[in-house]
Amino acid sequence: MLGVRCLFRSVRFCSSAPFPKHKPSAKLSVREALGAQNTSGERIKVQGWIRSVRSQKEVLFLHVNDGSSLESLQIVADSSLDSRELTFGSSVEIQGQLIKSPSKRQNVELKAEKIKVIGNCDAKAFPIKYKERHPLEYLRQYPHFRCRTNVLGSILRIRSEATAAIHSFFKDSGFVHIHTPVITSNDSEGAGELFQLEPSGKLKLPEKNFFNVPAFLTVSGQLHLEVMSGAFTQVFTFGPTFRAENSQSRRHLAEFYMVEAEISFVDSLQDLMQVIEELFKATAMMVLSNCPEDVELCHKFIAPGQKDRLEHMLKNNFLIISYTEAVEILKQASQNFTFTPEWGVDLQTEHEKYLVKHCGNIPVFVINYPLAIKPFYMRDNEDGPQHTQQDPATSTSRHLMLMNYRESRTSYQGLPHLPHHWPPASSGLPSSGYSIVAAVDLLVPGVGELFGGGLREERYHFLEERLARSGLTEVYQWYLDLRRFGSVPHGGFGMGFERYLQCILGVDNIKDVIPFPRFPHSCLL
Amino acid sequence: MLGVRCLFRSVRFCSSAPFPKHKPSAKLSVREALGAQNTSGERIKVQGWIRSVRSQKEVLFLHVNDGSSLESLQIVADSSLDSRELTFGSSVEIQGQLIKSPSKRQNVELKAEKIKVIGNCDAKAFPIKYKERHPLEYLRQYPHFRCRTNVLGSILRIRSEATAAIHSFFKDSGFVHIHTPVITSNDSEGAGELFQLEPSGKLKLPEKNFFNVPAFLTVSGQLHLEVMSGAFTQVFTFGPTFRAENSQSRRHLAEFYMVEAEISFVDSLQDLMQVIEELFKATAMMVLSNCPEDVELCHKFIAPGQKDRLEHMLKNNFLIISYTEAVEILKQASQNFTFTPEWGVDLQTEHEKYLVKHCGNIPVFVINYPLAIKPFYMRDNEDGPQHTQQDPATSTSRHLMLMNYRESRTSYQGLPHLPHHWPPASSGLPSSGYSIVAAVDLLVPGVGELFGGGLREERYHFLEERLARSGLTEVYQWYLDLRRFGSVPHGGFGMGFERYLQCILGVDNIKDVIPFPRFPHSCLL
Repeated sequence: MLGVRCLFRSVRFCSSAPFPKHKPSAKLSVREALGAQNTSGERIKVQGWIRSVRSQKEVLFLHVNDGSSLESLQIVADSSLDSRELTFGSSVEIQGQLIKSPSKRQNVELKAEKIKVIGNCDAKAFPIKYKERHPLEYLRQYPHFRCRTNVLGSILRIRSEATAAIHSFFKDSGFVHIHTPVITSNDSEGAGELFQLEPSGKLKLPEKNFFNVPAFLTVSGQLHLEVMSGAFTQVFTFGPTFRAENSQSRRHLAEFYMVEAEISFVDSLQDLMQVIEELFKATAMMVLSNCPEDVELCHKFIAPGQKDRLEHMLKNNFLIISYTEAVEILKQASQNFTFTPEWGVDLQTEHEKYLVKHCGNIPVFVINYPLAIKPFYMRDNEDGPQHTQQDPATSTSRHLMLMNYRESRTSYQGLPHLPHHWPPASSGLPSSGYSIVAAVDLLVPGVGELFGGGLREERYHFLEERLARSGLTEVYQWYLDLRRFGSVPHGGFGMGFERYLQCILGVDNIKDVIPFPRFPHSCLL
Repeated sequence: MLGVRCLFRSVRFCSSAPFPKHKPSAKLSVREALGAQNTSGERIKVQGWIRSVRSQKEVLFLHVNDGSSLESLQIVADSSLDSRELTFGSSVEIQGQLIKSPSKRQNVELKAEKIKVIGNCDAKAFPIKYKERHPLEYLRQYPHFRCRTNVLGSILRIRSEATAAIHSFFKDSGFVHIHTPVITSNDSEGAGELFQLEPSGKLKLPEKNFFNVPAFLTVSGQLHLEVMSGAFTQVFTFGPTFRAENSQSRRHLAEFYMVEAEISFVDSLQDLMQVIEELFKATAMMVLSNCPEDVELCHKFIAPGQKDRLEHMLKNNFLIISYTEAVEILKQASQNFTFTPEWGVDLQTEHEKYLVKHCGNIPVFVINYPLAIKPFYMRDNEDGPQHTQQDPATSTSRHLMLMNYRESRTSYQGLPHLPHHWPPASSGLPSSGYSIVAAVDLLVPGVGELFGGGLREERYHFLEERLARSGLTEVYQWYLDLRRFGSVPHGGFGMGFERYLQCILGVDNIKDVIPFPRFPHSCLL
């Protein structure tokens, strides 16, 4: 009878729906029952799993949940309907009358006339226990059951809503969605360790590749998206990406989801940062408005205080600092870092976290990186307005660097710990002759790097020279070709979807925001 | 400046949008320009690629396309703005006045005041030629350029719309979206040849698995979805799946997309078939209404007559026959098959196509298969109403089999070539003792099998026995556990997304409906 619930909601798409109309059926989801306007005893049927049983002398109370909402439906029954099979975790079908609840705890309740146990649950053997708030670490051992808890239920419903919000954001902004390939023959981008693949059983015969060439799991859809931005102007992808890195950190997975966008006719980082900030804020606000109870649960029990931290992020303009300035801030820091901050070396997680804190726990864009620590496709901005304004060797005022994004911004000026003279003699910066590229990362509280992006080198000869230097010309001939025929200035970015969820929900470990986490030594189910 | 276009459309999500409002900017996408209401000379800017150049003595005509629509924008300029760089494929930025076109071919045109060539295109070297309608086979050689043609542009915009339509359908029907994993340690489902993976360079050391266990690319998200349907009741996934099969057919890829759904508290195939038919029809109608020009192009140039064929599918109720009946129809066929149809053996593509044709080119559900040709998790329907009604050995009327789905259906009765007596003596069917499972496939014109699904064995002891027989008990202990704790009758289905696109558009080769096709011996880009 599922079809009924489903049919009623979707039938509006299908004007010539051929199905015989079921009478407004008694079957409701828990969410529908909880939101019902008519509570004058309408007969309904609800199916779900028992979340609590309270057996009194004359009355039996149950709470039934079907995953359609965090809240369960209260069932009130005559104790004659009680049975030993009504245990936590068992599945039931309940028929009865939907009435206004006399209690203030809920609006409605179901006065049961018939209770049918569909599937038993041996509560002793069931690893999820009644009334217990299991630690997330404990639940991770049971990927097939943890979704039945309040907390994972809420996180995964939020994940579903956030997915829809991201798709809506791009669709409403005129982007074309592209399924970039998971299997790719590109192996040289240098974004991380790769998984290689072959048909099962043929792993030991790499000379006979299935695809004729070695094939890998994608680390990013960017290059393929660039192909598509040359046809559709604005494109995005939202799919799985992979790293074969031996990391057990709270921010890394071997399989994770990336939201990536690529945009043609873009010639400044400012435009990219604007889309990034909008994407972050607009989707977070959609999630907050579409599943407030689920978000509240996370903000209450997983990360107390996170509600305020998120509001702080949403109501403030994101900040901008240059990479050079970031290094300077780190060098001036009183904190001892495991990795000494140094110009020309990539920022470490500890550095990212310090920078965000230093910026008042507002997300901060770090822009204009040395080419040496970024991939080959990043655009040299020697000729761009960004570069001349922001090159520390030529700039006379550090405020220019901070203010060039949006003149009306004032939030940065009061921040502490910046040197008063630029370039500081201590920085040891070369005063010229180093390549700065138009790359941007967004660092956020609790997580560190959330977005990475930049302008791509669209000039054939610049790119050709870079590829030649790395001996990659042949492999990337097709990529060079994009610059031969109707090339346009363009740029894009990628966002780690799990980190995004961590950031808005305050979930500490990335393994708890994905249904089935994959990481070194673990591939359960 | 891209941000502008994007910002205006999405700003409604973000009530506290922090950006300074750009003045209603001159920059429009081609789609926006074509749909503009104000054609009284408003100054605008358009960026895109030249699709045609017509240079007359005093006037220059260009058509510019940016991928936002199939139609290009006509640019009219004084011939003084002409230049040798204005070639097919080059990228341009044009400023001018948007006016009502005097020609009937288009509503508006852009009277150019300034034409800037952004990126040249050497038309001689460019593999896409002006005014040429390249065969799809030719275009496949250029996965980085074919998206710039009308036909691939339309197909990929339709793909994007269909993706959105499918997400909407499920969201509006109350389904939770789940990202099922791509990497899995399940290797025994038997859905096809698997890709195995290891970190690059470690392929030859399978004894040191990255995940401690051998890991594979998923062939289906079903089992993981079943986990989630035990928490959320209605779930779906839409992601890449993989087969390492050495097939060069027009219907197979090594990497393709599947839409899968799993639904709890479902106890008849009828409910599943209803959702399947709705999904097919509702999303097809959304695509038709959201990108009519793109669909028209396909129906006109790729598959003439497809418009009528699709309408025929959409306006008729899908049919239902049992597997046993299907075999009987095939045996009675006048056609010679490469594979002789035989009860107990899977249907071949040639059989599927014959059946669809036989059923008047209406999609047809084939239900109730022998267990032997379906996976271990399919529900034995010996005890179900389906079975008793449809078991050919006990049924006295073949119409029962066809009519039990929806009593009001009459479309089947007139079909030819059915035996008048059941069971026919010629069938050689065992009259009892064989296991029939509640499985369903949907066969559609042009493609054959589009959906596959069924009820899952939810009864612990039935499933345990099956697994034990196959020696799989240990590997699938977690799957068995789902039946130990609050088990519910449930079912689900999967749809090949590329085949769906083939079916509605009439595209013959599956390689032309995916951005970057992967198949044996080919992994371009």
